[in-house]
Amino acid sequence: MSKILRVNLTENKITSEPVPEKYLKLGGRALTAQVLTDEIDPACEPLGRHNKLVIATGLLSGSYLSSSSRLSIGGKSPLTGGIKEANAGGTAATALSKLGIKMIIIEGESKTGYSQYLYVNKDGAELRPAEMAGLGVYHSAKLFFERYGEKVSPILIGPAGEKGYYSAGITNTDPQGRPSRFCGRGGLGAVMGVKGLKAVIIDPADAPGVEYQDRPAFQELNKEMAKMLKENPVTGEGYPKYGTAAMATRTNALHALPTRNFSEGSFEYADKIDGEYLYKTIKARGGEGSTTHACMTGCMIRCSNVYADSDGKEVVAPIEYETIGLLGANCGIGNLDDIARLNYLCNDLGVDTIEIGVAVGVAMDQGVIPFGDAEAAYDLISEIADDTIMGKVLAQGALITGKVLGSRRIPVVKGQAMAAYDPRGIKGLGVTYATSPMGADHTAGSTARAQVEHTDPGPQVELSKKMQAFSMFADSMGLCLFVLAAFAPHLDKLAKLLEYYSGIKSSEQELLAGAAAALKTEREFNLRAGIGPAHDRIPEFMTEEPIPGIDSVFDVPHEELQKIAE
Amino acid sequence: MSKILRVNLTENKITSEPVPEKYLKLGGRALTAQVLTDEIDPACEPLGRHNKLVIATGLLSGSYLSSSSRLSIGGKSPLTGGIKEANAGGTAATALSKLGIKMIIIEGESKTGYSQYLYVNKDGAELRPAEMAGLGVYHSAKLFFERYGEKVSPILIGPAGEKGYYSAGITNTDPQGRPSRFCGRGGLGAVMGVKGLKAVIIDPADAPGVEYQDRPAFQELNKEMAKMLKENPVTGEGYPKYGTAAMATRTNALHALPTRNFSEGSFEYADKIDGEYLYKTIKARGGEGSTTHACMTGCMIRCSNVYADSDGKEVVAPIEYETIGLLGANCGIGNLDDIARLNYLCNDLGVDTIEIGVAVGVAMDQGVIPFGDAEAAYDLISEIADDTIMGKVLAQGALITGKVLGSRRIPVVKGQAMAAYDPRGIKGLGVTYATSPMGADHTAGSTARAQVEHTDPGPQVELSKKMQAFSMFADSMGLCLFVLAAFAPHLDKLAKLLEYYSGIKSSEQELLAGAAAALKTEREFNLRAGIGPAHDRIPEFMTEEPIPGIDSVFDVPHEELQKIAE
Repeated sequence: MSKILRVNLTENKITSEPVPEKYLKLGGRALTAQVLTDEIDPACEPLGRHNKLVIATGLLSGSYLSSSSRLSIGGKSPLTGGIKEANAGGTAATALSKLGIKMIIIEGESKTGYSQYLYVNKDGAELRPAEMAGLGVYHSAKLFFERYGEKVSPILIGPAGEKGYYSAGITNTDPQGRPSRFCGRGGLGAVMGVKGLKAVIIDPADAPGVEYQDRPAFQELNKEMAKMLKENPVTGEGYPKYGTAAMATRTNALHALPTRNFSEGSFEYADKIDGEYLYKTIKARGGEGSTTHACMTGCMIRCSNVYADSDGKEVVAPIEYETIGLLGANCGIGNLDDIARLNYLCNDLGVDTIEIGVAVGVAMDQGVIPFGDAEAAYDLISEIADDTIMGKVLAQGALITGKVLGSRRIPVVKGQAMAAYDPRGIKGLGVTYATSPMGADHTAGSTARAQVEHTDPGPQVELSKKMQAFSMFADSMGLCLFVLAAFAPHLDKLAKLLEYYSGIKSSEQELLAGAAAALKTEREFNLRAGIGPAHDRIPEFMTEEPIPGIDSVFDVPHEELQKIAE
Repeated sequence: MSKILRVNLTENKITSEPVPEKYLKLGGRALTAQVLTDEIDPACEPLGRHNKLVIATGLLSGSYLSSSSRLSIGGKSPLTGGIKEANAGGTAATALSKLGIKMIIIEGESKTGYSQYLYVNKDGAELRPAEMAGLGVYHSAKLFFERYGEKVSPILIGPAGEKGYYSAGITNTDPQGRPSRFCGRGGLGAVMGVKGLKAVIIDPADAPGVEYQDRPAFQELNKEMAKMLKENPVTGEGYPKYGTAAMATRTNALHALPTRNFSEGSFEYADKIDGEYLYKTIKARGGEGSTTHACMTGCMIRCSNVYADSDGKEVVAPIEYETIGLLGANCGIGNLDDIARLNYLCNDLGVDTIEIGVAVGVAMDQGVIPFGDAEAAYDLISEIADDTIMGKVLAQGALITGKVLGSRRIPVVKGQAMAAYDPRGIKGLGVTYATSPMGADHTAGSTARAQVEHTDPGPQVELSKKMQAFSMFADSMGLCLFVLAAFAPHLDKLAKLLEYYSGIKSSEQELLAGAAAALKTEREFNLRAGIGPAHDRIPEFMTEEPIPGIDSVFDVPHEELQKIAE
């Protein structure tokens, strides 16, 4: 991957640049962190013209290795005010790799106010007027596929992003063209939206394709890796069958399934929304539904799903645990059909289901609509499209919703909503929420599957620190976190694969040191943006209100948390 | 002033404590800063039960010296997230001094949800049920006077404070019983409100009264001070005649009068809302109006006013420059009758006219209602009472209003709205806004009257630093800032007065060193609360959009600003 595409929207100018030496060994999240540090003032306003959006491939993107082509997008977050990277599966990273593009840097902002999209193919790139401005992501994606064929990869935002709402994500498409692979967190969709960019269409037709330094060696070792994935019970059985939804059973048992705005940690309808129920429902209904599905070509884990209604017609794909937890249990909604509809609605608007699920939970807690009322939730979220004041409030996420409604129970850290793990039930995730430069983000270092006593504050900082480094490592390689279940003891082999793929000589130690360095880069960015250790805080109510059933509060001491950065 | 009253609302317990040695030489703002530093975790949630409210008298409170009995209220601000002190004239500080109470510390929060008020007299203090909960400050004050007689001093909040809205201030009454002397800034009314405290009634009947260490010496020197005030053209003529409204002429000429959400710095109707027009209008109408009025007993400056309608009936008292600038010019409203009505409405709700004036300006800029439409502004602000979502948004202040409405032009620093001075026209005030631990607050160090080239970035940091120290000095003595026009060259005499009053031996140097130390205490509190130099920022639009007419942007370099703390 030999080049960088730079798109300046103030001047409507596109340039192609060689990848400088210093970026050669960086990919994905680590790359976005370094580019943002090098190119923007951390104190700039997230929705001002000085912020940039970096769309990056991982170091293994485009290779044969299973689950290795996640798309990373970085920028300064309007929610946290700090550095942010969000990544997703889908097809775009592979398409970029085929075109030899390591990353796209989007800077400036449109002066005309007209929406544009960027079309990229083997011959270059061009900004074109986006007549699909204002449309949802499903309709927009359809128009792009009609125009450019089914092989293109649109990276796009919905109306929420176009309006600059902080809950907006950026999505890309799965192999069947569903625009539901969200780089969802941090409000990066708003950063793209305020720049006047609706989409980036990656067209890999007749692309040169990826090059390997040593293809036979790669293929040989890759066989071994594939075998590991297949034989590991988590990646070979659990994920393919139940997907992420399996987590609901676990969190419910640990009293860490956010229920009714994080007032409880287990939900009386948990067994109607968990992985097993999801599996059985999809199986029983047949039709377009599928219990297993790959979000990117060649993924062996296939943890995704296609959810169909009782007529066997597809409603949404996928339904993930975070959505089940936050638009479900956290809103008191215990029905997968309801959750699926809400999920589709959020996707189409282009908002993060985590941020909106938490915001709706807060609104329910404040009496705007009742807990458990899925119709009312649907109408409330629909207000985002209708531009009502309530819709605007909700669309800015959980913190602003809570502030406007006078809530004293707002489950956010550094302005960003918590994922579907109550930090009183799984304290290691509380440590990650509190200390990650990403704000409350489970993907920044999940401890949910670790074999520890999750309510014991003792081991959590060490554990979170380790998982934060692993996450950074995976996010930089372009790897799905789920492969780590099988690959974690074999990072040396991943180093070898990297060498066979791109010629970058490395070792397990070097890769982990690189991850630690990238985390430091992110923390330093945040310090300059005004976010430091004082902001490493779990909300007061969670340190004082015990979660029912286990009588646990979040009690990892603040001084302990600072060991993360050591 | 020998005692501290401590009111714990969690336990409904009141204790009287002697003043510890370390607080003896501290008063007003400096005292609140030290107590908050000593007693609360700077990282606590402003509207949580760990925040405290400190109601303090100044070091000269209750003395004969003109303009020396301002009431200081401190707490952690829900707007800025940092330390905050707001002070006002009125009668409460004198009443506290007569009772020998140096300060009242309010802590905890009601567990019942019922609103209470604190009644304080010579025999002690008691919490009583507040059946006036929900009423505006005018009606509430009337009920308190009916119950306890006209000599009491109510310190109270309106419905906005009771609902925890961040724009809520705390008011106290003038010598005629008008509850319009607002400790307006920082949202301290919300801190009081969430604790379930509607009011503090200070009843000085049969109080022991203040004691002087050397009354004859005080009286002798005080005569000299009175002469200074009388003979100084600013305190002896300007303020008594035109009041603060005179500032409109000056800021309009300097292109620093915020107009239409800070998009311009001079207003085509400035001469219909300035000091001279106000003076002439009040004079011509006669009746209950008055061009001069003392907000506290014995004030010689009498800069306040009583504004009457065309029938000579009182509308509001006073109308101040900040209200004229922000509910007037900044909203495109060029009519004093309109401004007076809006002012009364804000007072009655118990909101800060600065915060709300800026919030309405932002809402107008985003097209919610048109600039210049006073009726629409009245209806919009009335929504705060009606509990509509728009009302809730507005009531949380300019930042949240701007975020919800998607504004990129939000004139705030550290979450708090700017006062009525555009930092592009008067850059020294921009330095104060950016660097003061108080957020964008003109009273923390105004440079508006200094004899400098206000658009030259060169001298502003030094000037602001000096004025910030003077402000801290005055705010700690209990002095109105306006006396400094006459007293600034004679701080040695104020040190003497302090000695004759309370026996505290001091000097000009010591008093100024104390002010510098108190500013350091505030900055250190803020650092621990997560607010540091990175937050010393004027909004991007003001550093890039020149103010029309003078082609000036705010361009004092960020590195320069840090010299304030040296």
